[in-house]
Amino acid sequence: MNILQNIKENQDLRALPPESLPALCGEIREFLVKTVSRTGGHLASNLGAVELTVALHRVYDPEKDRILFDVGHQAYVHKLLTGRREEFARLRCLDGLAGFPKPCESRADPFLAGHASDAVSAAVGMARARTLRGEDYQIVAVLGDGALTGGLSYEGLSDAGASGEPLVVVLNDNGMSIKRSVGGVARWLSAARTRPGYLRFKQEYRRIVGRAPAVYNTLHQVKEWVKGQILPTGFFEDLGFYCIGPVDGHNVGELENALRWARDLRLPVLVHVVTVKGKGVPYAQAEPERYHGVGPFDPVTGELPAEEKDFSACFGETVTRLGARDERVCAVTAAMETGTGLEQFAEKFPDRYFELGIAEGHAAAMCGGMAKQGLCPVFAVYSTFLQRSYDMLIEDIALMGLHVVLAVDRAGLVGRDGVTHQGSFDLAFLSTVPGARIYAPASFQELETMLERAVLEDKGLVAVRYPRGGEGAYREDHGREDATVLRPGTDVTLVTHGVLVNQALEAARLLEERGVSAEVVKLNLLCPPALDVPLASLGRTGRLLCAEEVCRPGSMGMTILAAAAARGVALKASRLLDLGNGAVPHGSVEELRARLGLDAEGMVRAAEKLMGTAGEGHEKAEA
Amino acid sequence: MNILQNIKENQDLRALPPESLPALCGEIREFLVKTVSRTGGHLASNLGAVELTVALHRVYDPEKDRILFDVGHQAYVHKLLTGRREEFARLRCLDGLAGFPKPCESRADPFLAGHASDAVSAAVGMARARTLRGEDYQIVAVLGDGALTGGLSYEGLSDAGASGEPLVVVLNDNGMSIKRSVGGVARWLSAARTRPGYLRFKQEYRRIVGRAPAVYNTLHQVKEWVKGQILPTGFFEDLGFYCIGPVDGHNVGELENALRWARDLRLPVLVHVVTVKGKGVPYAQAEPERYHGVGPFDPVTGELPAEEKDFSACFGETVTRLGARDERVCAVTAAMETGTGLEQFAEKFPDRYFELGIAEGHAAAMCGGMAKQGLCPVFAVYSTFLQRSYDMLIEDIALMGLHVVLAVDRAGLVGRDGVTHQGSFDLAFLSTVPGARIYAPASFQELETMLERAVLEDKGLVAVRYPRGGEGAYREDHGREDATVLRPGTDVTLVTHGVLVNQALEAARLLEERGVSAEVVKLNLLCPPALDVPLASLGRTGRLLCAEEVCRPGSMGMTILAAAAARGVALKASRLLDLGNGAVPHGSVEELRARLGLDAEGMVRAAEKLMGTAGEGHEKAEA
Repeated sequence: MNILQNIKENQDLRALPPESLPALCGEIREFLVKTVSRTGGHLASNLGAVELTVALHRVYDPEKDRILFDVGHQAYVHKLLTGRREEFARLRCLDGLAGFPKPCESRADPFLAGHASDAVSAAVGMARARTLRGEDYQIVAVLGDGALTGGLSYEGLSDAGASGEPLVVVLNDNGMSIKRSVGGVARWLSAARTRPGYLRFKQEYRRIVGRAPAVYNTLHQVKEWVKGQILPTGFFEDLGFYCIGPVDGHNVGELENALRWARDLRLPVLVHVVTVKGKGVPYAQAEPERYHGVGPFDPVTGELPAEEKDFSACFGETVTRLGARDERVCAVTAAMETGTGLEQFAEKFPDRYFELGIAEGHAAAMCGGMAKQGLCPVFAVYSTFLQRSYDMLIEDIALMGLHVVLAVDRAGLVGRDGVTHQGSFDLAFLSTVPGARIYAPASFQELETMLERAVLEDKGLVAVRYPRGGEGAYREDHGREDATVLRPGTDVTLVTHGVLVNQALEAARLLEERGVSAEVVKLNLLCPPALDVPLASLGRTGRLLCAEEVCRPGSMGMTILAAAAARGVALKASRLLDLGNGAVPHGSVEELRARLGLDAEGMVRAAEKLMGTAGEGHEKAEA
Repeated sequence: MNILQNIKENQDLRALPPESLPALCGEIREFLVKTVSRTGGHLASNLGAVELTVALHRVYDPEKDRILFDVGHQAYVHKLLTGRREEFARLRCLDGLAGFPKPCESRADPFLAGHASDAVSAAVGMARARTLRGEDYQIVAVLGDGALTGGLSYEGLSDAGASGEPLVVVLNDNGMSIKRSVGGVARWLSAARTRPGYLRFKQEYRRIVGRAPAVYNTLHQVKEWVKGQILPTGFFEDLGFYCIGPVDGHNVGELENALRWARDLRLPVLVHVVTVKGKGVPYAQAEPERYHGVGPFDPVTGELPAEEKDFSACFGETVTRLGARDERVCAVTAAMETGTGLEQFAEKFPDRYFELGIAEGHAAAMCGGMAKQGLCPVFAVYSTFLQRSYDMLIEDIALMGLHVVLAVDRAGLVGRDGVTHQGSFDLAFLSTVPGARIYAPASFQELETMLERAVLEDKGLVAVRYPRGGEGAYREDHGREDATVLRPGTDVTLVTHGVLVNQALEAARLLEERGVSAEVVKLNLLCPPALDVPLASLGRTGRLLCAEEVCRPGSMGMTILAAAAARGVALKASRLLDLGNGAVPHGSVEELRARLGLDAEGMVRAAEKLMGTAGEGHEKAEA
């Protein structure tokens, strides 16, 4: 680690002789494997971006220029080279280094990243700001080929191309989205990858006409003419980009040349870089998908600990069973086949399985079309990414009363991926979708029962929201009830839903030891809200403690409070424990729960406070 | 009207000899002008689609095949030719014919339309359903060039092209979005429009290789080779479409030929049709934008009644003034320059004005980039279309605390455009965006004050939501207060916000005559919710009547009820008047208010009910 250790600032990296760069890249890979094998994180995408990031940092000034990493899966090397090496020991830990770019963490992180395909949009905005403010810095957006499957990238590229603003888009093309690129653009890419002589032609052309931006206008027409004569037009050219590539993404020298040229053109330029995901680490290179996002593993063999069954796997089994029972059932995913547990369905029913790329809006509208013509689509999607479908859920499904099932994975706290990925908002925004039903299973058995109801019995838009990870001690099945009193009590009504029922039951046990009798009410149907059971309980106890992994606005706590006021159920005291405004940082789910008071101890403390201050224990319920 | 009158069903249209079609199209235009000049509606887009729709109905069976009109601005001729001629007298009236396709209205309307760019997504879903169910019908999606500026179209086209499912996309290219197409794809289109010989080549090719789908696979490679040799590849070809065109969109015979060929190819095919918006009616053709969506007008001269100043115009004036004061201020719109009142700003500050096409997601993320680098973007957008930006508001603006102002136009009831356009949801979903502020002006003066606060004083994401149309009798300015008691009272607290304050004040006057003293509380700041004033009032009256033009979930009524319960403010009775689940049909705003009980009479009735049943007047508050 001699070379890496001596890089304190950008100048150190730039001063390195080219011949030492392969050794530096080797050290970086070693560092990544060592770190990620301990902390977990994104491995394969970062291994693939080592040379690219080194080249970017030799061509651009990360403090002054704006290097945007789309999604941010591939920003570890960038963090490593911008003064954050020491902090990798606490990568993705509570109050430690974030796994994604974060402006609050470093001046070198120009924009928050986490959801795909937004980097070009942000880059155009920045380029316009630079022009209007008369400032002088470079803007480069790095995106994976997967990000191209999202319509937002297209909107951004189209605007960027038309704007003429100088900015560089680096397409880090490893031939796969998180699983694999899909759609027409993937076809274009695979053709472009082998396009011969393109780079050489452009280089030759440039040698002739020079690089000076000042002469651009006079040269423009000639340029267009030459391009029209010799080169096939293509997707990016049509959008207004000048294209460079394909460039070998593991050759720092070639990358630097291409990036310098792109930078100096002072136009919207696309640099097409071909990389290998997992590059340089045999097990990661062989199975890049498996080493995309991982927990701790053996750095030598790559051996990953056996996975325990989680809700995603349970969903996958159940939807496959439902697919066997009813041939109208289709499974739809937006680039999350593995994450949502759909491998088995994909293998068993390939004709009814649809992987659409990172296109959540299209996925929802496409499901609407399927449902209209008699299929029963199940769209498996992470809570946080479903935010992209909000409009289509209303306009293309709900307002027609079409029967579409949403399998909302990663609902609630997701932990280490942090603020851009927490499943904070789905309950709130899904509750506004006209006629939507929302179930909240707390055990595998309940997920099965509720999914069966959703697919085979219900009508309209039906969501089943379940968390990342597995079930706890609670293994019961109340999936056919709207709400359930799991444990009777007389002093305080502890309302919850989903896997937090485990903490709630534990809290009730602890409270009993301390002489407080808590009634645990579990909500199974969140929308339309199951209110009779909790309100009846509140009528007895007069005290509400509601614990849930959702943001405050639109929470069940707010809904129950409103119903209590409207129905004249007087409360002596109330307290809502939840995700507040929904912006929850990274850390383990357990750490986050403890901090937010959503663990058993937190619930106990809150309940005791409600008891001790009865009659004046009201807290502000608004967010 | 001899020919049109005799078309009772699709067979009648198909039986017409080609030579009578121009006369039919003339009659249809005459009918459109006569009808729309009385009822108001979309004129120019429908005038441009007459021949295209006639051709579609001669090639496809509208009852069996699925003809999807993207956005639906151009579906009047389709409605006219599918048995709804008589109903045009009540076009866009309450319980009358809808202005957009509606599956509940006719079997010939296969999908709800209203928001742009979703038709291809729905079409792919339908095509997959057809394949999986082994059914036999055709699917054709008609979209304007404006719809191509939306990323959703790209996601749909990319998936459709890759799917290989037989479906036809008709690009109705009139060289403009609602105002004009923007972005790279517009450039591509304008090149494609004049591409010589493309259609002729394809026709020749088809003559040689025949049309039989069965031989497609064997021919495919040859076809690709020929295409590669002779034709430039282009945007749609890259996405996997076969392209036909450009076709003269006002020649029924040429259109029929192209559509038949496209249909019989049994592949994803794009038919590029060039039309003239407003065709055949001089004033509409000369100013298609002005006659896009209109109220009643003079059918002979096209004279439109003088427009009264509305909130959009007030916004336009104010943002222009702010732009003069502060050069960081930029205005951003997603294809709604005229609708949002931005013409003046565009003219005065062209460098700081950004029309991005129908790309609300990109607009929001681009604003994030602008704000990050020191500009103050104001994104003017209709409430209903802002649904498309939901994810970007959170991820690309709010989580970084960036200062972006949303001018949320058409918030609340929009009236005749109906269920797909009502501004029902913005308060609910904006309230979930971390740190968002939401103002609700009720007069022009308040809009000015609040926009000034939002732009010059506030931080973070700030929304100002204002309605379609103009102000009422209320002309005060309480824009610097969070909430205001406009009229004191002792019996019932009537809480409201926005222009409904006019109805509320009128209701209070009527109630006074009947011996009921209503305190009118106007909320100026909806998020974070201004609760102290309404709760203090409720502490005195004990009765809550809340009237607002938002959906029930996330409404101020729900928030106030929850706060009352949490703070121990006991209510004797309560009633929420609002848009319920948000799915409100078309009709005039006045008619809709009357039906929903949101007029002064409705508020009086509700208040009297609260008084008469005091002590047991609680109604269910949940949606």
